[in-house]
Amino acid sequence: MIGGLMAQRVAIAVHGGAGNIRPTDIPPARQQQAEAYLREVVQEGYELLRSGRSALDVVEIAVRRLEDSGLFNAGRGAVRNSQGVVELDASIMDGRTRAVGAVAAVRQVQNPVSLARQVMERTRHVLIVGPAADELARAWALPMRNEVEFSEPATTFWGTVGAVALDAQGNLAAATSTGGLSGKLPGRVGDSPIPGAGTYAENGLVALSATGEGEYFLRSVLVYDIAARLRYQKVPLSQALASAFQERLEPIGGRGGVIAITPTGEVAFYFNTSCLFRAAIDGEGRLTVGTFR
Amino acid sequence: MIGGLMAQRVAIAVHGGAGNIRPTDIPPARQQQAEAYLREVVQEGYELLRSGRSALDVVEIAVRRLEDSGLFNAGRGAVRNSQGVVELDASIMDGRTRAVGAVAAVRQVQNPVSLARQVMERTRHVLIVGPAADELARAWALPMRNEVEFSEPATTFWGTVGAVALDAQGNLAAATSTGGLSGKLPGRVGDSPIPGAGTYAENGLVALSATGEGEYFLRSVLVYDIAARLRYQKVPLSQALASAFQERLEPIGGRGGVIAITPTGEVAFYFNTSCLFRAAIDGEGRLTVGTFR
Repeated sequence: MIGGLMAQRVAIAVHGGAGNIRPTDIPPARQQQAEAYLREVVQEGYELLRSGRSALDVVEIAVRRLEDSGLFNAGRGAVRNSQGVVELDASIMDGRTRAVGAVAAVRQVQNPVSLARQVMERTRHVLIVGPAADELARAWALPMRNEVEFSEPATTFWGTVGAVALDAQGNLAAATSTGGLSGKLPGRVGDSPIPGAGTYAENGLVALSATGEGEYFLRSVLVYDIAARLRYQKVPLSQALASAFQERLEPIGGRGGVIAITPTGEVAFYFNTSCLFRAAIDGEGRLTVGTFR
Repeated sequence: MIGGLMAQRVAIAVHGGAGNIRPTDIPPARQQQAEAYLREVVQEGYELLRSGRSALDVVEIAVRRLEDSGLFNAGRGAVRNSQGVVELDASIMDGRTRAVGAVAAVRQVQNPVSLARQVMERTRHVLIVGPAADELARAWALPMRNEVEFSEPATTFWGTVGAVALDAQGNLAAATSTGGLSGKLPGRVGDSPIPGAGTYAENGLVALSATGEGEYFLRSVLVYDIAARLRYQKVPLSQALASAFQERLEPIGGRGGVIAITPTGEVAFYFNTSCLFRAAIDGEGRLTVGTFR
């Protein structure tokens, strides 16, 4: 580390989805397993940030770990659509430049978030969907899914995964990955791969990742609405989150959760469901892990 | 018409894409043909609105006419991707409910905007992409493209089409349709089908449709940024448009244009390119048709 950087605050928050389950709906061992995994992911991410890794690298690494866990509705653990097929959506956004990479309705790539990053860095495009995106993954030699390895968890929540981070250079980044709604129509795309709906990062302002009923987040342009309240109303983060949910999402019946990090390393969670699988280490180094309120 | 409704203002605006061409780059007959067509579309739409048709119906009808014209980069006139294939994106948004329907990377349906409307009304989803969306169109018996009928115009501009309308009940709606970037990678999706990026409508606030380099509009969440400035900063529409372009789009190098209608029937066009094919009839009944500044 070069002098001075270590004095900068770094922070990370991750989520493993929101849902309307009661504590008795989930076996204690399963909840413990998910929380332990989320804790491990933020601890690993925090150390990488402290060692000088970029927020962009760290959100990709964190989401890849969550995709690989099989514990959430993303990557290995993704739910199936109405035809019994897994279709995955993901995005990543760099707060320095507002560059975005995103993929949707991909079936074959192992880590959609890493394909999204490659779309951002290797093409002039933001969003690539369907079989063409899988073909890019193959052309770029990214690891492909081995279908027999994958198992579908019996989820009663939107187990989308996401990460937001602040690095020692003051850069923000966000990433989100999901298998979408269980039983969705083929080709259906939710909010996770869409900048402004499920993922947003802008240096000096905020990094956000959402989980929930994607259609309502799309119709509300929810995470950019939070960012816009911060920029144009200059309200505190907690108020921007609460107002966006109450004034934009809830009037049309939407449910879910959002994680947020500010340029000073403040971390916030907001959800109008009973639970949000979550973990964070904020700018003061404080660890939080939780599922229910 | 039921008493009183006729006294309500109605308004419509349409665009046929923005670009950086000089007046001498386009044959006068072609410009005249495009302008005459846009005029016809707004006059037809205005009469429908005056007769009580909903803004939602009228933006769909207007965009379908533009898709069918073969004059713009949408529907019949769409450009080809890097593999020589036409892939189309479209969306429609109802300002009453913020309901949205959208499709992307479809190849076979004749009128993507009408498929988008059906997605909104017949599924629980917002956005459906790729071959699955074409299959829905076939299942719903929508007219399919006859490939030999289609011709690609030699465009040097983003000839995306769009419409925004205010109806006699005070409802706003917006729709956008495009063939995307010429030579784009297969599966590439731009801003047109994405609520908040290329299309947005919210009663009491504004209806917006964009055209331009889609990636920059996605990264800027541009049209929702305009809406957010109106709601949170309470600035005039002209200022919201100019500030969104100058503070969000231009710093990252984006170019294009936006059309807007307010709840009082005010119409605005904004573009940072040399031209925007456009026509409108505002709440006072004033017709505007233009291409260059």
